[in-house]
Amino acid sequence: MGKISVVKQVLDANDRIAQENRAVFDAKSIFVINLMSSPGAGKTTLVEKTISALRGRYRIGVIEGDIQDTYDADRIAALDIPVVQINTGGGCHIDANMVREAMAGLDLDAMDFLINENVGNLVCPAEFKIGENAKVMILSTPEGADKPSKYPLMFHESKVLLINKMDLAPYVDFDLEKARRDALAINPDLVIFEVSCKTGKGLQEWFTWISNQIEDYQKSRM
Amino acid sequence: MGKISVVKQVLDANDRIAQENRAVFDAKSIFVINLMSSPGAGKTTLVEKTISALRGRYRIGVIEGDIQDTYDADRIAALDIPVVQINTGGGCHIDANMVREAMAGLDLDAMDFLINENVGNLVCPAEFKIGENAKVMILSTPEGADKPSKYPLMFHESKVLLINKMDLAPYVDFDLEKARRDALAINPDLVIFEVSCKTGKGLQEWFTWISNQIEDYQKSRM
Repeated sequence: MGKISVVKQVLDANDRIAQENRAVFDAKSIFVINLMSSPGAGKTTLVEKTISALRGRYRIGVIEGDIQDTYDADRIAALDIPVVQINTGGGCHIDANMVREAMAGLDLDAMDFLINENVGNLVCPAEFKIGENAKVMILSTPEGADKPSKYPLMFHESKVLLINKMDLAPYVDFDLEKARRDALAINPDLVIFEVSCKTGKGLQEWFTWISNQIEDYQKSRM
Repeated sequence: MGKISVVKQVLDANDRIAQENRAVFDAKSIFVINLMSSPGAGKTTLVEKTISALRGRYRIGVIEGDIQDTYDADRIAALDIPVVQINTGGGCHIDANMVREAMAGLDLDAMDFLINENVGNLVCPAEFKIGENAKVMILSTPEGADKPSKYPLMFHESKVLLINKMDLAPYVDFDLEKARRDALAINPDLVIFEVSCKTGKGLQEWFTWISNQIEDYQKSRM
């Protein structure tokens, strides 16, 4: 059995389970995002800010994917939001089967919006569907504007890109126009927001966009 | 055939090829490093600075690992240093077989020090030996001080950790003591340098350390 055959079988099995997860989410009208980025780009802080902004309007749940431990899940649990931790045990991404197991630990009948925070990795998570409505990615300015061209798959697969740590842009010579241009060359439909999770700048546009997505989805389920 | 069996077979085959690579490097007394980090932590800039500092003393070659394209290899080639590009075609790390193929494109009889720059990924590259003398990793301050605890394998496998972008530390609330403490808890023998590839601060200690490593190795081969 060749290496490529094995990988394809793994991905096919994953896609099938992702479709099953999606059917469960649709039955309960839950809008689901798969949040991806490099390590330290600001995923957990974005989740915290998004919960604070939208918790009055939607019932939110979180699945936290990490290689080990519960640092991020502890941060979310401190907000009194239902959260389940996936420990991948060395694995570099979450997959549909891990999410299926985590779903068993959430009250899906009391949820409108489920955020899956993936393992910090700009490569592998983009290959694995989990049953999400949308893949959401973060690129932080210290990573550099060459990242869309060098790691194209995640930019290709994502519906929205948040360019985070805009407050650091002056200190890191971040070429915003190059990042935007290269990302849009890979994915012309990509929605891009320039934000700083630290200062809050630009986040309102993200909150409005994701709220509209949730409401359009909920209407489509009626 | 279970998933774990497949992975183990892949790693066993990789280790065998890594040993064969190592035998070739030893026959030619080439000191080899495997440079790893998250995307955008500063690997290519560190390679450029290290070449500038040590090219008068050692004959240096570079293998550049990227998912696609030749951006980083172009930067190294501009320094008039022999460089071979590995394109992983979506793959999230370089492995021993890719390095073996790249070695065919280098004049190993005219080389003392070979730098392998891995794909930007804090997870997967640490699992794959390539025949290196030492794994070298970078953590950049904007990624945050929680990274050793969250991504322990690379810190465990590396001989040296460069904490880069120290010039940004004041803007990103980087807890240097926590990063050092947690990294050393995972790997008590880890050698740690605090550097800024942008300003040059701290790099002399790295140049001295790597020079000593190269010379100790060359003496051991006589």
